[in-house]
Formats: sequence, C-alpha cells, structure tokens
Amino acid sequence: MNYQFSERMSTIRSSSIREILKITQNPEVISFAAGSPASESFPIQEFSELSKEIYEKNPVQALQYNVTEGYPPLLDKISKRLKEKFKVGNENDSTLVVSGGQQGIEFIAKVLCNEGDTIICENPTFVGGMNAFRSHGANLVGIEMDDEGIRVDNLEKAIKNNKNAKMIYLIPTFQNPTGKTMSLRRRKEVYELASKYNILILEDNPYGELRFNGEDIAPIKSMDTEGIVIYCGSFSKTLSAGMRLGFVNGPSKILQKIVLAKQVSDVHTNIYFQILTDKYLEKYNYDAHIEEIRNLYRRKSNLMIKTIEKNFDKRVQFTRPDGGLFLWCTMPDEIDINEFTKRALEKKVAFVPGHDFLPDYDEPCHCFRLNYSTPSDESIVNGIKIIAEVINEFLDK
Amino acid sequence: MNYQFSERMSTIRSSSIREILKITQNPEVISFAAGSPASESFPIQEFSELSKEIYEKNPVQALQYNVTEGYPPLLDKISKRLKEKFKVGNENDSTLVVSGGQQGIEFIAKVLCNEGDTIICENPTFVGGMNAFRSHGANLVGIEMDDEGIRVDNLEKAIKNNKNAKMIYLIPTFQNPTGKTMSLRRRKEVYELASKYNILILEDNPYGELRFNGEDIAPIKSMDTEGIVIYCGSFSKTLSAGMRLGFVNGPSKILQKIVLAKQVSDVHTNIYFQILTDKYLEKYNYDAHIEEIRNLYRRKSNLMIKTIEKNFDKRVQFTRPDGGLFLWCTMPDEIDINEFTKRALEKKVAFVPGHDFLPDYDEPCHCFRLNYSTPSDESIVNGIKIIAEVINEFLDK
Repeated sequence: MNYQFSERMSTIRSSSIREILKITQNPEVISFAAGSPASESFPIQEFSELSKEIYEKNPVQALQYNVTEGYPPLLDKISKRLKEKFKVGNENDSTLVVSGGQQGIEFIAKVLCNEGDTIICENPTFVGGMNAFRSHGANLVGIEMDDEGIRVDNLEKAIKNNKNAKMIYLIPTFQNPTGKTMSLRRRKEVYELASKYNILILEDNPYGELRFNGEDIAPIKSMDTEGIVIYCGSFSKTLSAGMRLGFVNGPSKILQKIVLAKQVSDVHTNIYFQILTDKYLEKYNYDAHIEEIRNLYRRKSNLMIKTIEKNFDKRVQFTRPDGGLFLWCTMPDEIDINEFTKRALEKKVAFVPGHDFLPDYDEPCHCFRLNYSTPSDESIVNGIKIIAEVINEFLDK
Repeated sequence: MNYQFSERMSTIRSSSIREILKITQNPEVISFAAGSPASESFPIQEFSELSKEIYEKNPVQALQYNVTEGYPPLLDKISKRLKEKFKVGNENDSTLVVSGGQQGIEFIAKVLCNEGDTIICENPTFVGGMNAFRSHGANLVGIEMDDEGIRVDNLEKAIKNNKNAKMIYLIPTFQNPTGKTMSLRRRKEVYELASKYNILILEDNPYGELRFNGEDIAPIKSMDTEGIVIYCGSFSKTLSAGMRLGFVNGPSKILQKIVLAKQVSDVHTNIYFQILTDKYLEKYNYDAHIEEIRNLYRRKSNLMIKTIEKNFDKRVQFTRPDGGLFLWCTMPDEIDINEFTKRALEKKVAFVPGHDFLPDYDEPCHCFRLNYSTPSDESIVNGIKIIAEVINEFLDK
C-alpha cells in the first residue's frame, strides 16, 4: 500500500542529532552531541528509598489511573516553588504536570496553532521545540540574537510582516543551542512588544535552575499581568530525564485546553514518578541537590572553556554560558560545517552541526554545539584537542 | 486576552465521564463508571522486588534519556509475544513502545489524518479513540453493530459515501463500551473490504488478553498480508494502568512517522517502567498472572449479570461479554438517559450514559455502560439493586 501521510508531518526532517547519537553508542567515540544531564546528578539513593516506601505504603495509587492534570500534592509544590522562587504564576494561571517539557510545547502548539500560523523564535533554537510547532503545520520565522538575546527591532518587524503570527517561542535562559541568556532589559522589551501586538509568548525554561555564574534573571512569565505568557519547566535536568516529568504554568483558560489534549494523548503522566517526586521535594533538600549540579557543571564548563582557549584557532568564536548544558562555536565562513562534523566523527569525536537548530533549514551555517554535562573530564580535554586538530586541518586548506 | 484556539481542538467536548469520575471520588458513591483495572490485579510484590533490583543494578539507565522507539529488550519481547500468541506482525511490520494505547491512537491520527478526513468506527465506541481523531480535525462516521460486530453492508456504504475515508477504527474484542466481540467471519469480511477499497484499519485491542469465556479469536492484524492494519495494545489492563505503557505494531513505514510524532511529544516512554516490565516478562509468569485476572473478572461479571437478571425489569436489555471490563445496557426508548443517570447519582450510584460513546453527539441514545472490574462484590450487588429501583421509577412513570 502507498501510505498517504498527513500534511502537518511533512515538514519534519529526522534531525541529524539522532543519527549522531546512534554513532555515539560506540564507547570509543567522545560525544559532545547529547543534551543529557550528567548521570552522576541523579539522586539514586534517595529515589531508591522513596520507591521502597511507595511500594510498601501506597502501591495501588502509584499503579492505578490518575487524573490528567497531575498528582495534586505535586502540583501544589510545583506551583509554590514557581511562585516563591521565580515569581511565576498568578490567580489567573494554573499548573499542569506533563511528560517532560517537550510534551508541554507540543500540546501548546496543538491547542493554539492552526496550520499556516507563524511562530517567531530565536535563530538558532531548540530543534525539538521547532519540530513540535512544525508537526502542527506552523511556519517558523527565526530572529537573530545579539549578546542580550533576541533582537527586538527584528522581532517587531517579523510580527508586523506576519499577519498570522501566533506566538513567540523563546528559551531566555541558557538557551539551547547557544548557551546565551537574555538580559532583564530585553525580557521587558519582548514582553511589551508581545503585549502591544496581542501575541502570546512561550517561555521554555528547562535549564533555568542550572545557573553556575552570576545572578538569576526574572523569567518573562514573572512580568505577565495580561495572561500572555505560557511557561514550561522540567525535572529532566535536575532529578531524572528518563522519568519524563515536566510542567506547564499559564493562563487557566489555555491550560484547560491542554488538559483535553493530554487526555487524548497519554491520559496522564506516569503517576509513580509523580508521587516519588512529590515525596522527594517533601523529604529532601532539592535546592542543595541543585547546588551540587551547579558546582559540577561550573567545573565542567570551565574545563571545556579553558581547553578551548588553549587549543582552538583564534578565528573560532564561542559563547561562555552562565549555566545550562551547552556552548556554541562559530567557525570562519569558509568552513563547510557538515564536512567538518564528518571529519571529526572519523576521528571519533561527535557534536551537533548548527544546521539542525535553524528555523530555515537551508540558511548557511558555520556553527556547532558542544555539550559539557555528559562527557567525563578526560573526554572533555581529549575531545576538545581532537576538534582543535580538525579545525587546523580545515583552516590550513 | 481573548485566546484563539486551534480549529482542530474545537470539536472535542469534555466528556461526562470526567465529571462523573469527580463525583465518584466520594467514597459513599458506588461507581460502575470507571474503566480501570481491578486494583487487586497489580503485581505489587513483583514490581517492588524488580524495582529494588533496578535501583541497585542499573539505576542510571533507568533515569537517563533513552531512545524514542522503546527499550530494545522489551520491544523484542512484545514483538515475540504478539507473533507467537496472536500471529500479529510480519517482516514489513515493526513494534513501538508508547505511553499507553491511547497515545498510540493519537499518534496514528496525527501522522495519517488531514483535517476533514473521515474515520469510520463502530457506533457506539471508545470516547478516547474518537477524541484522538477529533483532535486532529477528522470527522467520525459511526456504523451500527449486530451480534457479530460492525455491520459490513453499512460499512461498505460508508466507505463509498465518504471519498476521504481514511481509516476504519475498530475494537473487535470485548469492545468498549458494548463488551461485544466481532466474529472471525466478520473480521475477515472487514479486512477484505478494507483491502478492496485501499483503506487502513486501526485495530485497538486493550482488552484482548482478558478473555474469560470461550475461545480466542484471531486479531484482524493476523490476516494482514498487505500492510493495511495498525494494531494497538497495552499493559494497562494486565500490569499497571498508572505506569502508562502500551505498544503499536504496524507497517514499518507508518511507524517511522509515529516515531517522529513521539519524538516531538514525550520523547520516549518512561524508561524505568520499560525496564521493569521487561524484567517482569523475563522473570515471572505473565500468562499465569493474566489467568488470575481472567478468573477475577469472570467471577465479577457473572455476579453482575446474575444480579441484573434477578433485579432489572425485563424490558432492559444488556450484553453478556466474554471478556474485558464492560457490559452495555439498553433501556426502552421512552427513557431519558441523562435524567436516569442523574437520578441514579442522587441515589449514589454512578455509570456512564451512552451519549459519550456516540460518534454523533446528537443522536438519541437510551443506553448506559457498566464496569465490573473496579467495584467490590458487595458494591456490585448493592449498586445493581439501586439501579433496578431507578429503572422501576422511570418505567412506572
């Protein structure tokens, strides 16, 4: 049979990240390609003890169907933390548990975007976010960033030039893939622009807890007096990525629709891990745990940056993130980044070429993304030195 | 702000099941409304032991990101079981783990249906299945069933009358809500019709393992030589509903698209429970466990049927399922089923009125669904007697 697929799925290409991740299953390959948290960051002992308690005390609840919105005590704790720590959420907002932040983005796209709507985003940005919007038939318009984040002049032009502009998709803090953080001033300007043009903002904040330099900057959602910002967060980078547990905070009217979308999809998020996370937040010191992860990533990012400074040709530019998992390297214009990536893979070092992060696939790109949370210290040093050699090969040509 | 939602979500109404389920949180209410497995069917002791083993032996794998397709050893076991026990799956098919069978249906709708496509289904049918299709803008056309399942003459008419008929959505075994099972002859006729008109079949089989009377009937998927049947299954009714673990088997070309849809939604299904289920299937006797559930549901369904026979007015018809979770009652035409449901709720007994299961909301309906897997034996007897009283109230009017 000749299968006819839906139009909405036709613009999604399988990203090269997936192909690269398959190669990185080879233990000889040093990988800077993943976006995974450090395995040593998982609170294994605590989870093990809490698990034992769950199977002893309330196993039926942990294995039976539950409500779509999320386990009520966990919802309360998430809402409280968002409010107290980030000033996120007011009386018109509510919180919903989702199966990872990515699912939040997908449901937001589903309930808000008609096919042909335009989503304005940072350029480059997270491929999973873009593909969630693409999978519901939305078009993407990417806006360049400067050191303070997305450029407001071009953002306003894009809003004016796209009559069906529906939403601005942003990762203001430790952006994926660039590691950049939007300044407070820029956040205010972006919010005011969205308010002026009556357009929604999706603030995707999976890395916000992972600041290892400088001071926290208030989320855009904390400025939201008009109900125009939806906020996605996650436990994937702080407790466990594999349990698939994230959350959405936003206008209750929008969240009611998202609950319907979740109900027809996975019905509810795995309830055992909702109970487990609730108990974790109750019994253990989550902030102290996060502090340990920050220390770990500070050390790893410093090591990567020091090794880059020592070994990379000076024509290669790179970002110095204040948190999160990634930094972003920009090569001189003459370099073919796909050839460069291929050559590094031959030398058993993997990273993600920049193309994957472009809203417009065909735009030229001379960048690549490096992850420092997953590789060992030794791999960071050896891998960066090998990349430096490949850079020299290409620049000497 | 006045939110503009997507058109695709506009035809989904919040089902009355949700509202009724809220009322049934009240422990005084006897509920036949749920579709939950019996709590005593969960293998708690086994899960507890396996969990301990996971946190001791491979906790990092159980908490880190994993591949979208599913945990490979579990995929192998599911494929093997489908092949050996149900003759499901050939060399052009593959298997994918999803976060519950419902998610499988939703992804199938997403990758195959354009807005305005028609899905032909049984009338009545599972509200979650219908809403998954509705949420991607598909229209539903319901076809009446007789004692052998969906009527083939009307099915053929519907295919002819709907040029954009894309798929036939069926629950051939212990159908939700009717408890009916499609005969082997009818399955063959439906398959031949789909083949003749080049139309796909989605065979939803969440209850297929739960036969407590008679002999198993081959799934439609077992007849699929042309790659036109997609099959959804689940561990929700046999191991745990709350872990959210199901699977899809179907043509690899379609499953590749579903993998993309899953990648932009929850990325992968909770990996801890995939490993746990894999270990369960390896170490314990799954078939013996299922046999226990079958014995339990045989007893409960017999008790419900006996109590109905003794107490319901003879003008009320009801089905006698050979497996699954539900039976379906049909009242005389003059009864307003919503008033009837409301009156039963006043007397603290809950069930789901038939309207929720209709492809066309506005069609008249005089039916209601009863679940026997969740209530205790005592509740079955007392609840059925109360419904019998309400029936008499309404028939005496």
